[in-house]
Amino acid sequence: MEGGGQTQTVESHPYVPTDLNLPDFVPGFLSQSTIVGVYGLSSLLLVSLIWIVSGRSPKISKIDRLLMCWWAFTGLTHMILEGYFAFSPEFYKEKTACYLAEVWKEYSKGDSRYAARDAGVVAVEGLTAVLEGPACLLAVYAIATRKSCSYILQLAISLGQLYGTAVYFITSYLEGDNFAASAYYYYAYYIGANASWVVIPTLIVIRCWKKICAAVQVQSQTKTKLR
Amino acid sequence: MEGGGQTQTVESHPYVPTDLNLPDFVPGFLSQSTIVGVYGLSSLLLVSLIWIVSGRSPKISKIDRLLMCWWAFTGLTHMILEGYFAFSPEFYKEKTACYLAEVWKEYSKGDSRYAARDAGVVAVEGLTAVLEGPACLLAVYAIATRKSCSYILQLAISLGQLYGTAVYFITSYLEGDNFAASAYYYYAYYIGANASWVVIPTLIVIRCWKKICAAVQVQSQTKTKLR
Repeated sequence: MEGGGQTQTVESHPYVPTDLNLPDFVPGFLSQSTIVGVYGLSSLLLVSLIWIVSGRSPKISKIDRLLMCWWAFTGLTHMILEGYFAFSPEFYKEKTACYLAEVWKEYSKGDSRYAARDAGVVAVEGLTAVLEGPACLLAVYAIATRKSCSYILQLAISLGQLYGTAVYFITSYLEGDNFAASAYYYYAYYIGANASWVVIPTLIVIRCWKKICAAVQVQSQTKTKLR
Repeated sequence: MEGGGQTQTVESHPYVPTDLNLPDFVPGFLSQSTIVGVYGLSSLLLVSLIWIVSGRSPKISKIDRLLMCWWAFTGLTHMILEGYFAFSPEFYKEKTACYLAEVWKEYSKGDSRYAARDAGVVAVEGLTAVLEGPACLLAVYAIATRKSCSYILQLAISLGQLYGTAVYFITSYLEGDNFAASAYYYYAYYIGANASWVVIPTLIVIRCWKKICAAVQVQSQTKTKLR
């Protein structure tokens, strides 16, 4: 897809709506399999590392070790991938095969609001990168050191992730839900890539909610007995 | 501000940006003092009622009674005022002095994105009205009946309110922060009317966080002792 080039012609881009104006757009260099492969492999490496290291402590249960893997994975995704997006308004003009720009050039095929810099998307991604990312790493630490605030921290972050995902999907619906380059990209990127951040936070919220209610109940019973 | 009227002329409106297109706009009928007065008086009535009724139970502490007042006030505000807005895309065309339409015709002077139906604003208001409103009333009930999930419920709603307010302010900033008809409306409506939903949820989050951490700590100590 080369754009003619005599004067300042509008570079064609693969996104929908096609009349989206992206001056100086530079197409991606890396293939989809390379982009997804690098993300998948580095995530697998990270998760394996956390699983092995956490396994050295006999005090940490298997479910807590799994949660540590999740929090490390989602925290670094928030801080690195989403952090880059939140503060790189011109990623689609990137002239080199910078991996982080490639990720968002590719993902924009599933949701062109990323390239178009939709305010709702940028606000949610900014909050996720700046507040939730570091909080996720804090959750890894809190679980590892068995801090009493671990459940409440995990619940707070998960609720934030769910709220962000809800705003993300609702704003798209309100704006016409026509931002994917094809049905494939719609289901693979827009739906598929976000599904984990609906399902897993929901499960964590339910688990932490039960644990906290049980703890508060035990405490109030202890108080009653002491009277 | 009357719009000529031979043919379909664009009705002038008091909002900024002035080129905002609001076909069939009908100016508000009620004065600012009437709109604010009705809201203030009915809120005062509600709060007094909750305060008096909750005072009949000697088991409920004063801070919990105050919290019940807050949750009833904010819950009904979410459900009635914000619920009306979320599901009334054409409130600015309302030809009668319908109080709920008047509220949003007036508030749009502080943030015209309400009249313009900005997707970010509608998404946040929708979530607030549908999920957080009923949850607030549940919090009133949970405090009154001393349910063990009371703190976690209050914390979850407050975090949602803070997240929503953050998205609200950040999207405005990203879109140029030029939606108020004057500095007066900017500070009175956009900043002033929203300040309570930053300050009070923050205080509640801090309080509930401490209470929950303490309860979890007590429980884990109890477990250790029982071994």
